[in-house]
Parts: sequence; structure tokens; C-alpha cells
Amino acid sequence: MTRSPLAPAAFPSLPAIPGVTLRVARAHYKQWDRCDLTFVTMDEGTAVAGVTTTSKCPSPEVEWCRDALPLGRARALVVNAGNSNAFTGNRGRAAVEAIAARVAGHLGCQPSDVFVSSTGVIGVPLPIDKAEAGLDAAFTAEPCGWEDAANTIGTTDTFAKGASTSAIVDGRRINLVGIIKGSGMIAPDMATMLGYVFTDAAVDSAFLQRALHDANRNSFSCITVDSDTSTSDTVLAFATGAAGNAPISDEDNDGADAFRAALADLCLQLAHLVVRDGEGASKFIRIDVGGAESDASAHRIALSIANSPLVKTAIAGEDANWGRIVMAVGKAGEPADRDKLAITFGGVQVASAGLAVEGYDEAPVAAHLKGQDIEIGVDLGLGEGRATVWTCDLTHGYISINADYRS
Amino acid sequence: MTRSPLAPAAFPSLPAIPGVTLRVARAHYKQWDRCDLTFVTMDEGTAVAGVTTTSKCPSPEVEWCRDALPLGRARALVVNAGNSNAFTGNRGRAAVEAIAARVAGHLGCQPSDVFVSSTGVIGVPLPIDKAEAGLDAAFTAEPCGWEDAANTIGTTDTFAKGASTSAIVDGRRINLVGIIKGSGMIAPDMATMLGYVFTDAAVDSAFLQRALHDANRNSFSCITVDSDTSTSDTVLAFATGAAGNAPISDEDNDGADAFRAALADLCLQLAHLVVRDGEGASKFIRIDVGGAESDASAHRIALSIANSPLVKTAIAGEDANWGRIVMAVGKAGEPADRDKLAITFGGVQVASAGLAVEGYDEAPVAAHLKGQDIEIGVDLGLGEGRATVWTCDLTHGYISINADYRS
Repeated sequence: MTRSPLAPAAFPSLPAIPGVTLRVARAHYKQWDRCDLTFVTMDEGTAVAGVTTTSKCPSPEVEWCRDALPLGRARALVVNAGNSNAFTGNRGRAAVEAIAARVAGHLGCQPSDVFVSSTGVIGVPLPIDKAEAGLDAAFTAEPCGWEDAANTIGTTDTFAKGASTSAIVDGRRINLVGIIKGSGMIAPDMATMLGYVFTDAAVDSAFLQRALHDANRNSFSCITVDSDTSTSDTVLAFATGAAGNAPISDEDNDGADAFRAALADLCLQLAHLVVRDGEGASKFIRIDVGGAESDASAHRIALSIANSPLVKTAIAGEDANWGRIVMAVGKAGEPADRDKLAITFGGVQVASAGLAVEGYDEAPVAAHLKGQDIEIGVDLGLGEGRATVWTCDLTHGYISINADYRS
Repeated sequence: MTRSPLAPAAFPSLPAIPGVTLRVARAHYKQWDRCDLTFVTMDEGTAVAGVTTTSKCPSPEVEWCRDALPLGRARALVVNAGNSNAFTGNRGRAAVEAIAARVAGHLGCQPSDVFVSSTGVIGVPLPIDKAEAGLDAAFTAEPCGWEDAANTIGTTDTFAKGASTSAIVDGRRINLVGIIKGSGMIAPDMATMLGYVFTDAAVDSAFLQRALHDANRNSFSCITVDSDTSTSDTVLAFATGAAGNAPISDEDNDGADAFRAALADLCLQLAHLVVRDGEGASKFIRIDVGGAESDASAHRIALSIANSPLVKTAIAGEDANWGRIVMAVGKAGEPADRDKLAITFGGVQVASAGLAVEGYDEAPVAAHLKGQDIEIGVDLGLGEGRATVWTCDLTHGYISINADYRS
């Protein structure tokens, strides 16, 4: 697969997270010559939080994680790539239970301490024999680094995605590292894709859950590639506590604020990486909507623009077709007044008060649209509500990837 | 523009509608060598009804029609192609008023008896001088037939679209003829596109409005090409009364039922023609959803499938990728139970009770998907709600048309 033109130059240098050990192995879920099973172990006392797809047809892995999350503790994560195990009934559930049991036996922990994700084709039960052989290989494999793990959780991704950030908590520097996969079947309003965040901070699990929920709302829930929502979307956050800080909780205001900010920053970095690997993407598009009646209304209007095939193809064609943005605002079903609407491309006003701006300078707009990073601004002129979402353009590449993909 | 592969072999033979006279002219709204102004006159006493876009940013033409519709009477219709006049503020409104005034002066009727539609690029005020010169040419032009009018209202359409039906009312045969334009920016839940229905029946205008509303709900509101909604969508129905029947109203049960059925049939024919000219379409797709908790729920699930880029590209690739249908059901936000879901392609069961059907015969499914008319069936297994929608596939042709189109 050709590397996305929007990819960063290289995988970043990411710090080790004390208490977290990564391993990868070949389970041969598909006929391919690559690692496809990621096995992460975490020290005892690791807290966990998670957000999962809002799909009404979730995978057994999603159901498994949802059941385990309220317990708030984790010892291991297994990610299978190449087969999502979704829509496979009891056989799919049995595969997840077998994986958790085998890992629990190996580590001497509870099955509910083992988190499992799978990604790939829907409708084929994950073969238990391959999973078990893959796990056995992972148990004895040498530990690996973040880039190997990020590559191993990927499927149609064209580059490995990882990011990090840090904060000062309780007088100590704590690190957060995340890896993520996803490039198609990406839509917002839920946790999207498979993403994993690891930190050495000690964090109360209930606080971690609230912080992840908030971070998700402003990151993964604000991106869309194709408006389609996976049955397997999962984001998990693990906190090992190895940094030795006093556990962060709501009562710890300074530490809590610093951690929340760091987690939000990391989730946004990871979300942007997914958009930058959007199937067929040639442009990274930021859409700012302001002046709406509420933030929620602004968010829905921004997504209506971001999901519009006509807007996305116009950007692919480097065409300042603001009429299609008016169309997308109009179809959102949210309060809007045609005669108060203003639109900018790259900061240049092209329409205001319901009219094209007479004689606006087209040169900077044309130059902006020829770039890779596109900014669209919409002001509704109604109130104080605002939202930002990120998406990519819709190109021949998306059609080629998805019309030729064989189930 | 290459004629859509899904187009009918030829424009149908359509009867004249007594009381309706068609003319076309060149207003030169764009630099092209074709008629782009359609002028239809109707005898005094003609009743009118209409449905218009739900966009919050409608064109001044839509607002004009909405204001005039409650009066229930019409003498003329003007359709401009090449410029939608949408998002043009007071200058756009002035153009509509100028057109209505000029036609009213010519016919000796009220401006509110004149209905106006425009279609094409958004954001450029319709030039009044060109509209007036075009009207003057139309006033003196020879009357023309349905195919000329259907061609003249079109823009990116690749073929002229018309259909007819008839009914026996009050012992007389009455005819209904419709013409329609539209191929992109087509989404449901509203009147879509520009469509015009003419009948010689005498019909009470309030009854006509209700009948059109109902017909729209089961036709134009059940199609989607790209999930994008135009700011100009309008469907108008005109009844001249020339057939001499006792006016059809709700009190006239037999005639009312026959007329409603005929109007519903005609609207569905016209709606299908729009899908068959969907931008880049190579497959006509029917999606039947049953077993939902309500008809409205089934409709939303069917549209979630019909609007999914991943489903549409799978059909373009002739791939029986039912996992993407599960995904689209799951993301619809409607009640669904993964373990009760059943899916068919061309009537062949490929999944049931939350599982792939073991060893189903792939040959008839593959053969079905190679054809032009694709049928997808989904049974939710929850209740009695059902709905049918129609759409087309998503191909390289759609990208080419819309990424290369210049505003």
C-alpha cells in the first residue's frame, strides 16, 4: 500500500512506559507474511478506562471490554489484525473467551483483566487454534518497541501511528504514549477505531474513565473519513502507576488538570493521524463552525460539511466551491439563516451575509486549496456555539481501495 | 456527457395534457449552445400543489413557490437551467420577482400564479436581463413536446426523464405526465430535485396537496444518490381540469383513490429515473428493510445502508460484502439486535441469526451482483416495520464528475 501523502515524515521517537511490555507475533489470521497479533502486558495495579463504538451491532470483543471495564483493572491487552470477529455469534464470543483464558493462565490473573480487540473482515469467526498458537508465540517473544506494535495492529493503514506527551504531576514527569490504527470505516460520535493509550502515571480508574470520555468527545468524536462506523471501535487507556505519584483523582485538582490536558492532547494527535491516513486522502481538512445556537448544533453542522461527498470531492478538485458548503449547512437540520452565513477558505472571506463577497481575492484561496492542509470556516451569525472537526477529501483512491477490496 | 448505462432505451411516448402548453428558449445562462429556459402555460382554473426542500438555506425560488402554493392556483411555470440563483440575497429574490412580473404581464394573471424554479451553480444571482430576453423569446416560440422540455430543465443529467400514467375518474380517462431533472446532490426526506407533474384531471387543490405529500413520502423521499440535499429541490403538480371530470376531492372516494394511486405510480417512476441517472452510477440498487420496530425505523436503517460509502463501493466492486451492511445497520442508531439480523442479496440468504449462512451458494449471488439491478434485503427480526429505498453505487465516475466540476 502506498504511504499516505499526508503521513508524517517518520514514526516519532516515543519513550518507554514503565510497567508496560510489548510483544508481537504471527498468528497467520490471513495469508500474509507479517505479525498480526499484539500482546501487551502491564504490571499489577494497572488502571484501565475505555470508550467503545455506538454501533448497535458491536463485535464480541467490544462486548467483552464493556463487561470488564467497570472493574477498572487490567493486566494484558491482545489485538488481532486481519479478522474483526464481528457478526460471528457464539463462535466469536468463544474465541474471545479462549484468548482471555489462555492469557490469564499464563499471567496468573483473572480473565477479566485481559482486554481483547480484533480488526479486519466481518463475519468470519476468529480461528481459536490460530489465536492460541499466536499467543503461545507471543508469550516467548522478545519485547518490542512502539513502532512494531503500531504496525502490528494495522490493517489497511498505510503508516504506523503513534504519539506521546507528558505532564508534571505530583512533582514528577509522567509520560503518555498512544498507538492507533484506522483509515476507513471512520465516523464520529463515538469512540472510533482501535486506539490504545499507556501512561506510567498512577490514576484512579473512575477518574481515568471520565478523563478519557472527555478527551474522546473532543478528538475521536470530531473526526470522520467516510461517515461509516465500525462495529469494533475501541479506545482503551491504561495507567500502570509506575511513576509513583500519588494517584490522580478528581480531588487532586492540579494533577487532575495536568493529566486531563495531556490526555486530551494525545488523543487529538492520534485522531489527526487517523484522518491523515484516510483511505485515498490527499488533503487534511479542518472545519471550524462558529456562531451556532449551541456547541452541539455547531458540531452537527461541522459533521454535515465533513461528511458531504460533494464538499469532499470539491476539495479533492481544489475548487473553492462554497455553494456546496451552503448546501451542507442547509441539510444539517440545525438552525441556520441563509442571510447571516459567512464562509472562509484558509482565512479568506468568500461569502458573507448570504452573498458572495464581491471581488474577493481568489489568488490566496486558490493557493490555499492547492496545499495539503485545508481550513474551512463557517460563521452562522446566530449565537456562541462552536465546534471543530477534521476530515479528508474523497478521491479516486477511496473508490479504488473500497470497490476492489474483497470480503 | 455519456448517457448513463442505467438509462431507459429511449424517451417514452407521452400524451399531450389538454390545458398545458410547453415552450423552450435560449436565455444563455451559461456559455452553451442549448435551450435553458422552459416556459409552461396552463389554462385558467389550474390547481397546483408542491413540496420543497427541507434545507435551511433554500433558494429564493423555493421561497417564492412556498408563498404562492397556499393560493392553490397556477397559470405558468418557468424553469431556468444553469444557475440555481441560490444564496444570492436580495438580487436573487429580485430576479424571481422580475420573472413572475413579466410572465404575469404577458398572460394577464397575478404574479403569484407564476411558479419559478432554477437549477445550477449556487451563489451567482440569476441575470435579470438574460431571464427577460429568454422569456420574450419563449413567449413567441412554437410550442414543443415533453422531450424538449425534459432536456431543457436538465443540467448534469445524462438523459431526458419523463413518465406517464392514467386513471379512470368520474367515468373518464385522465392522464398524468411528469418530467424531472436531477442526478447529483440527491438525498431524501424531502422533495428532491426539480420535478413537475401535469394532469388534465380537475382536482381540488387542497386534495392535490395532500396526495402529492403522500406520493412524495413513498417516492422522492425514498431515493438517495449521494446523501447531499439541494437548496432548490421542488416538485410541483398542476391539474388543468380540462378532462371535465367532477373535481376530485377527499369526498370523492373512488376518484380520489384512483388519482392517488396514479400520482404515486408516476412519482415513483420519476424518482427511479433520477437514481438511474445518479452521477457515475453503474448499478440501480433496491434496499428492502423488514422486521423493524416501525416503518420510520426501517426507513432510517434503509437510508443508512443506501448512504454508506462502503456499501456503495462494495456494490460497485460486485462484492457480496454483507459485513458492510451489518456495519450500516449498526450505525443507523435504530433498534437492532445483531443476533436476529438476516441479509439477502438477490433473494439469496447470506446471513441469518447473526451468522453467515454456512455454505450458501455463492454462484447466484455473484451472478446477481454482476447485473445492473441489485436487490439487498435486510430483516431485523424485531417487529413489523418495513421500508424500501433506492440508490445507486459509488464509482470513479462520481469522483470524476464532482472533483472536476468547476464552480
